[in-house]
Amino acid sequence: MAALMGQMMERPLLISSLLDHAEQYHGDTEIVSRTLSDGIHRYDYAAAAVRARRMAKALLRLGVQPGERVGTLAWNGYRHFELYYAISGIGAVTHTVNPRLFLEQLVWIINDADDQILFFDLSFSALIEKLAPQCPKVRHWVGMCSREQLPAEAIPNLLCYEDLLAAEDADYSWPDLDERSAAALCYTSGTTGNPKGVLYSHRSMLLHGLASCAPDVFGFSARDCVLPVVPMFHVNAWTIPYAAAMVGAKLVLPGAALDGASLYELFETERVTFCGGVPTVWQGLMLYLDAKKLKLSTLRRGVIGGSAAPAALLQKFEQDYQVKIDQAWGMTEISPLGTYNRAKLKHLKLPLAEQQALAVKQGRPPFGVQLKIVDAEGQTLPNDGVAVGELMIRGHWVVDHYFNLDKSPLQNGWFPTGDVGSIDADGYLQITDRAKDVIKSGGEWIGSIDLENLACAHPRVAQAAVIGVFHPKWDERPLLLVVPREGETLTREEMLAFYEGKVAKWWIPDDVVVVEALPLTATGKISKLQLREKYRQHLAG
Amino acid sequence: MAALMGQMMERPLLISSLLDHAEQYHGDTEIVSRTLSDGIHRYDYAAAAVRARRMAKALLRLGVQPGERVGTLAWNGYRHFELYYAISGIGAVTHTVNPRLFLEQLVWIINDADDQILFFDLSFSALIEKLAPQCPKVRHWVGMCSREQLPAEAIPNLLCYEDLLAAEDADYSWPDLDERSAAALCYTSGTTGNPKGVLYSHRSMLLHGLASCAPDVFGFSARDCVLPVVPMFHVNAWTIPYAAAMVGAKLVLPGAALDGASLYELFETERVTFCGGVPTVWQGLMLYLDAKKLKLSTLRRGVIGGSAAPAALLQKFEQDYQVKIDQAWGMTEISPLGTYNRAKLKHLKLPLAEQQALAVKQGRPPFGVQLKIVDAEGQTLPNDGVAVGELMIRGHWVVDHYFNLDKSPLQNGWFPTGDVGSIDADGYLQITDRAKDVIKSGGEWIGSIDLENLACAHPRVAQAAVIGVFHPKWDERPLLLVVPREGETLTREEMLAFYEGKVAKWWIPDDVVVVEALPLTATGKISKLQLREKYRQHLAG
Ligand SMILES: Nc1ncnc2c1ncn2[C@@H]1O[C@H](COP(=O)(O)OP(=O)(O)OP(=O)(O)O)[C@@H](O)[C@H]1O
Ligand SMILES: Nc1ncnc2c1ncn2[C@@H]1O[C@H](COP(=O)(O)OP(=O)(O)OP(=O)(O)O)[C@@H](O)[C@H]1O
Ligand SMILES: [Mg+2]
Ligand SMILES: [Mg+2]
Repeated sequence: MAALMGQMMERPLLISSLLDHAEQYHGDTEIVSRTLSDGIHRYDYAAAAVRARRMAKALLRLGVQPGERVGTLAWNGYRHFELYYAISGIGAVTHTVNPRLFLEQLVWIINDADDQILFFDLSFSALIEKLAPQCPKVRHWVGMCSREQLPAEAIPNLLCYEDLLAAEDADYSWPDLDERSAAALCYTSGTTGNPKGVLYSHRSMLLHGLASCAPDVFGFSARDCVLPVVPMFHVNAWTIPYAAAMVGAKLVLPGAALDGASLYELFETERVTFCGGVPTVWQGLMLYLDAKKLKLSTLRRGVIGGSAAPAALLQKFEQDYQVKIDQAWGMTEISPLGTYNRAKLKHLKLPLAEQQALAVKQGRPPFGVQLKIVDAEGQTLPNDGVAVGELMIRGHWVVDHYFNLDKSPLQNGWFPTGDVGSIDADGYLQITDRAKDVIKSGGEWIGSIDLENLACAHPRVAQAAVIGVFHPKWDERPLLLVVPREGETLTREEMLAFYEGKVAKWWIPDDVVVVEALPLTATGKISKLQLREKYRQHLAG
Repeated sequence: MAALMGQMMERPLLISSLLDHAEQYHGDTEIVSRTLSDGIHRYDYAAAAVRARRMAKALLRLGVQPGERVGTLAWNGYRHFELYYAISGIGAVTHTVNPRLFLEQLVWIINDADDQILFFDLSFSALIEKLAPQCPKVRHWVGMCSREQLPAEAIPNLLCYEDLLAAEDADYSWPDLDERSAAALCYTSGTTGNPKGVLYSHRSMLLHGLASCAPDVFGFSARDCVLPVVPMFHVNAWTIPYAAAMVGAKLVLPGAALDGASLYELFETERVTFCGGVPTVWQGLMLYLDAKKLKLSTLRRGVIGGSAAPAALLQKFEQDYQVKIDQAWGMTEISPLGTYNRAKLKHLKLPLAEQQALAVKQGRPPFGVQLKIVDAEGQTLPNDGVAVGELMIRGHWVVDHYFNLDKSPLQNGWFPTGDVGSIDADGYLQITDRAKDVIKSGGEWIGSIDLENLACAHPRVAQAAVIGVFHPKWDERPLLLVVPREGETLTREEMLAFYEGKVAKWWIPDDVVVVEALPLTATGKISKLQLREKYRQHLAG
């Protein structure tokens, strides 16, 4: 017997419908941007929607076809927001490019994506001058500025964003697309190897957006003022530009100034309630607030992810600044939401120390994704908070194939994350390491994240990294690299002593190197690849 | 050029995946039910999931085919919860039947739906005895009880729920269905005419569930304990049994005892944080709390809908009990969520009186549905908070066709709701009336909801209804019917005086009838149909 179909309206899940919603029901809610040149720019969802429609017409006039990629190299700002909606709205693909990658990586990515048009912020003009000759298939380079501001650099086929807009009216309605059609493209960070492209669909993005707004994830409402420090050039700024429109939250886009002082100013003047950033951003903010003895008047919640969040940082914000920062774990391949750390009803009764121990975990999956950990043979391990294995994920916003790669990365329908960790009986994931960063000492695993977390709890440590380096007897042993807080000093001995009694003896690093800074990747993560390269022979003796 | 498809996993949106999620990540979160006979029943999502899988196997063994309807006539309880998932999980259709309808309506609905099996709570045994002979196509009547409890009534083909379960193990995985296949069926309340069937799909239910959990709707999290007073036999108990599983909220199912005292006891012993009910339920609770001078220790939020919420009731709960009750507007045809009343950022600065005036509106649409109002010619009216017209809606969880009716109710892709109201510039809907209840006096419209709201603000009024009755000169004039609070009296004169200065003079009812009770429909709404019938000639002179 043929199944009976439901008799509800059939409407596709489309990114453009988010902007329609914001325009119709939150038209006067503000979008505030710190620009590169003219200070603060301020408009609202209604004005943004009008400009996005005009940009859509401009793209069509430039001949952009359905499914074609249109690139952006830009900070978080209102024009980038307009492009997020204009490009996918006409059925093309918003390809956000990470400007912090190396030149060769950028060239490779833009050519691999086959970007037809590339929009760029003026701070990248010099970079574009170098890129353009190596990306001959890009038909137009568009400066995200007004005519007077167009850069002096020698850039071929240069167009001006505001000129394109000025030539169009807003008399346009978003087409009805297949909800499974491609909407956006983003490459991974390149932390462990070459970046790989992930091609999101309208459907995956909308389901991800709906899940992200829930109270146990971002918890966004029309009473929020949200500031994404996470860049719009990487993994959709953790979906914040979509989620904010979905609920009608005020949006504050911080541009290129992401230091503590600049962020603090925006938090206070715009009365920001929620902020999202990687650990180094929260760390920078914390050091600034601490140094200047400042308080935050409206910021009360935030999300931290991209790499492990040090417990000390979370506690400091909660206790000294009344900001509850929740940890999330995500990946480019999963849009990025995988887990979010919010307590359950039963946890509210736990003693503070136990609640804090829980908060250091990466969190539990929202409805829409499923997790499991497997051993080297691919056998599922128990969710008991003890067993450690490779993390696998599947769900509505998880990659199926990488862009331009034939071979699917999936194993029996699950995506292997390359992350290693445990899952407890309540579904809370704890990442102990990346598979590639795991330290294997005498056949046993040592988790670098735990050791880093402990080092960060030291009051004079600003940043820490633990890597495995070659050891003649044990194959690999842990090496700790620490950056002292500004004006402070640290010694090898005190760091080693600090570990005493906190971890098993054989986990304690063999040596400590005090450094001025740690090398960061394009998305602001500590580059263990570079560190391992440099310190490979450190314990060779 | 063919559109480029996204490269994300393709997984259907299925109701069964909600229960899988709750089992895996919220297995020990409780579901507490007040039963008809044995007091409190207590288990958790893991146990519920196991029993739902066993029931799925029992249904298959009984020969239930994909798309076939399986009916329920039951209160809110754990077995009903299991059926919600077991029936749709195997690809059949959960048809919840409203036991408060008249016998002839029940017979008509069960036959129209072509229910193959009908599950019933024991309090309906006598009713089933009368129904069964008139519903010959029902193959089995299943008592939701254990063998010892099976009713003595003469019911043909009687089976026992616990026996069915006992015969099966839980070794079953939910099949992958088409997400557009039918999952549930519910008929409208029959307030304005005959009930009509709405056939929900898995997809519509999941999108509706995701939208319902958002902070500007129910705002459910794993820290909530949710008690739906709204019945599972009507419009999916406003999706609460699905939404709670989606986020892992504790669920408290109150059975048949919905009076103030019984609810209060559950609120306190189970530490309920959120409750959903129609105005008469909240009214009953308020009168009970008031009379007994009680406080609520954990309940802080709730939703009210199904008919207009009197301002006085919302304010009373907020001020005296610290419970914020938000008004929602919905319909069987829209799953039911249409609008939800939560303030925006800009409203938080308004004076209290203005915030209260806003709270009386029905709310604004969440992402996923769109509203408009039209005049008699179908022309769209402005969203200015002044223009009043018929409300139209479209979106992911809106009906396309009624079950077994060929002609689509849609007009140009929009569903005409039969409700009349205004929409303000912020998207807040205010229902002034049902189209069928509108009072037309000398060619001008008078909104009955406003007049009822005002009457309810009188300290000695328990309930009020305003209907249009025949008038020799003005065609129709408003008549007020009031029920005084227990032990109180009311006069015509004081009610009329109470309106003075609060509405235009010509809106003031022509007469007042003090009554002991108002007739209610099957879903607890005041039946204006019956009132109009009875008082038609009241002003005929
Ligand atoms: N809360 C977190 N705790 C620990 N690690 C995290 C957390 N959030 C993200 N990560 C790490 O970041 C990874 C995802 O990052 P992203 O997709 O930006 O690229 P990448 O993995 O750094 O780069 P590439 O895949 O190209 O090597 C995860 O696989 C995980 O290793
Ligand atoms: N918050 C509210 N304020 C005013 N009216 C409401 C509200 N919520 C629901 N309603 C009314 O309830 C109706 C939907 O109820 P339901 O689908 O249960 O059936 P019904 O309309 O009462 O019955 P029928 O359609 O069979 O006549 C809405 O169309 C509206 O008239
Ligand atoms: Mg990666
Ligand atoms: Mg109706």
